[in-house]
Amino acid sequence: MDVTESRRQFLRQASLGAAVAALTGPAALAQPLTAAMQHANKKKLGWAIVGLGKFATEQIMPNFNDCAHSQLVALVSGSPDKARKLAREYGIDEKSVYDYQNFDSIRDNPAVDVVYIILPNALHAEYTIRAAQAGKHVLCEKPMATSVEDCQKMIAACNKAGKQLMIAYRAQYEPFNLNAIERIRKGELGKIQFITADHGRPVKPTEDQADTWRVQKKLAGGGSLMDIGIYSLNACRYLTGEEPEEITAQIYSDPKDPRFKEVEDNVAFTLRFPSGILAACTSSYSYQGVKRGRVFGDKGWLDLDPLSDYDKHTMKIGTEQGEQEPKLKEGNQFAAEMDHLSQCIMQNKAPRTPGEEGLRDVRYMLAIYEAARKGKAVKV
Amino acid sequence: MDVTESRRQFLRQASLGAAVAALTGPAALAQPLTAAMQHANKKKLGWAIVGLGKFATEQIMPNFNDCAHSQLVALVSGSPDKARKLAREYGIDEKSVYDYQNFDSIRDNPAVDVVYIILPNALHAEYTIRAAQAGKHVLCEKPMATSVEDCQKMIAACNKAGKQLMIAYRAQYEPFNLNAIERIRKGELGKIQFITADHGRPVKPTEDQADTWRVQKKLAGGGSLMDIGIYSLNACRYLTGEEPEEITAQIYSDPKDPRFKEVEDNVAFTLRFPSGILAACTSSYSYQGVKRGRVFGDKGWLDLDPLSDYDKHTMKIGTEQGEQEPKLKEGNQFAAEMDHLSQCIMQNKAPRTPGEEGLRDVRYMLAIYEAARKGKAVKV
Repeated sequence: MDVTESRRQFLRQASLGAAVAALTGPAALAQPLTAAMQHANKKKLGWAIVGLGKFATEQIMPNFNDCAHSQLVALVSGSPDKARKLAREYGIDEKSVYDYQNFDSIRDNPAVDVVYIILPNALHAEYTIRAAQAGKHVLCEKPMATSVEDCQKMIAACNKAGKQLMIAYRAQYEPFNLNAIERIRKGELGKIQFITADHGRPVKPTEDQADTWRVQKKLAGGGSLMDIGIYSLNACRYLTGEEPEEITAQIYSDPKDPRFKEVEDNVAFTLRFPSGILAACTSSYSYQGVKRGRVFGDKGWLDLDPLSDYDKHTMKIGTEQGEQEPKLKEGNQFAAEMDHLSQCIMQNKAPRTPGEEGLRDVRYMLAIYEAARKGKAVKV
Repeated sequence: MDVTESRRQFLRQASLGAAVAALTGPAALAQPLTAAMQHANKKKLGWAIVGLGKFATEQIMPNFNDCAHSQLVALVSGSPDKARKLAREYGIDEKSVYDYQNFDSIRDNPAVDVVYIILPNALHAEYTIRAAQAGKHVLCEKPMATSVEDCQKMIAACNKAGKQLMIAYRAQYEPFNLNAIERIRKGELGKIQFITADHGRPVKPTEDQADTWRVQKKLAGGGSLMDIGIYSLNACRYLTGEEPEEITAQIYSDPKDPRFKEVEDNVAFTLRFPSGILAACTSSYSYQGVKRGRVFGDKGWLDLDPLSDYDKHTMKIGTEQGEQEPKLKEGNQFAAEMDHLSQCIMQNKAPRTPGEEGLRDVRYMLAIYEAARKGKAVKV
């Protein structure tokens, strides 16, 4: 590729980036255009994982194997033994293992392009901001943060640093969900009327260390809604392609259950969207593992059950003509998600799920809490 | 059976009736005890159908064939030709065919014990009251009426006449639903956390004459909620065995859709029950035929899908051990329902779904409308 061709391609990408940014908000192009050039010859970007809990070690780290544009090159953990052991397993240079004190020195590590924050919810803001200040792009687990203010600070910090910020909404990179969105947009279900979605799993803080922080308000920000109800909420938004206007909710936690001294257990909420679509959703820390959604159109319904599993999805469609189960291929949503951000960085494009997307859900979740607390419909 | 044995049996039945009445309210025993004796030697009670629409002619009338204690002996209709034709088909004496003017003379027809009201919702009160005043027991379609006042008048009229009043909640006489209730009460799903239920069907007033009155507020009282959402609502109550305490709701009808000038289309509502169980339900006149419910317990979930079909049900149960589909036998819910009332009359017992049951749903449905209108949680 000669210089002219390279420049032409770069401009094409830049203008695509601008088009996407125009659609999705101004975050992406806060990054100087030179960033795209800086990564232009790199096939894979280098990633650091912050927080080595079960989700990081069992789901994220092994899935770099399937990435075409993302490579695991650094670890950040409060457990030095665990981090060193994992570094050896993954062939990571010991100099690229950080703890939470020396994390900021990651700025001097040119191998690291992106930092993936997999910490308890309330720590997302601090580590996203520190990562941006260290000159790194950020992928941050959902919920983005536990307050709107924190979300805004995270967006501002990444903008100021000229770095990308993406929220890890894995379902939006998962083939069954993407196929559902496509069918809905093509009108296969007719005019959409309703979404229902239910997400729950038993939280067991005394049996499973990974659940300890989830029942602590200070670390989790909330209970089942923040942890898994967010899948129902976010699905309502990407399946409809609309933002809710009004929210009602009811919450119940057994006052005798020690798990729910600080965070909520069961949440029922309804949403109304501008086109009139309604949604009715539940989230729970007390029912068995359920993660399902249904879209009701005037010509048919579409089930995803599970909707948000790690690796096993089912789609069913019911119309007047009967039921069918389209055979779709499972895909590695984690690899797709990480590669999406790597490619967005390399091509200077805004990611599909930027900080603004995460902020919206935090705002809606806080409105769900408010609606339940005040016993009234909350306009958002 | 000699007189002493007969009398002993009668007293046993009467005291069972008293026990049931003590549990379910005072309606049944307003009927003089002599009524039971009056029917004691009758194997089948005589039934009149009021209103010969599609539901009456296609679902109810043919199902008397499966009744052990109920026999179709009279028809009431505004279409004399239709009524005479059906009377001939069903071997009904032409003298037992009434219209809405001479309906009250049914009092002089000793063959008729029970009148089954299958008219548009807003007419239930008038015909129930006229039937009671004519000295007949009443089975009335749901919703019982379109106002709490009408429900109260219906109960009072039947009490005054010493006649039974039952509301036709067929799902409460349907084997899959009864089996679900039994499993829930036995604790098979653990502690119940949530109910979700969705009921909808396309209403087509210009294509289907049976739908004409359904979109007229004066006759229907409301839209999809009154017509089919009531299945979701009632299922939440019989599956939990509790009465809701607080209700939230959102409603949307396309202002450009001529079907919804007077009644509502889509309703999303949530309920909170005294034990803390939450429910999230939808009803619609615009999504495809869906009639499903799920109970979420902390040990597993139970699906009924369909929950409220005429003759085809499926139950699925999911626990940590996996999913199973109990093989249950379909039963004739219509015959069971009619025979239940016939037997209650013969044995002077209160029916399982008396007027008070119908009144509660009407009160809750009006609270759902109020919650949506006012944008606030309504305590009931």
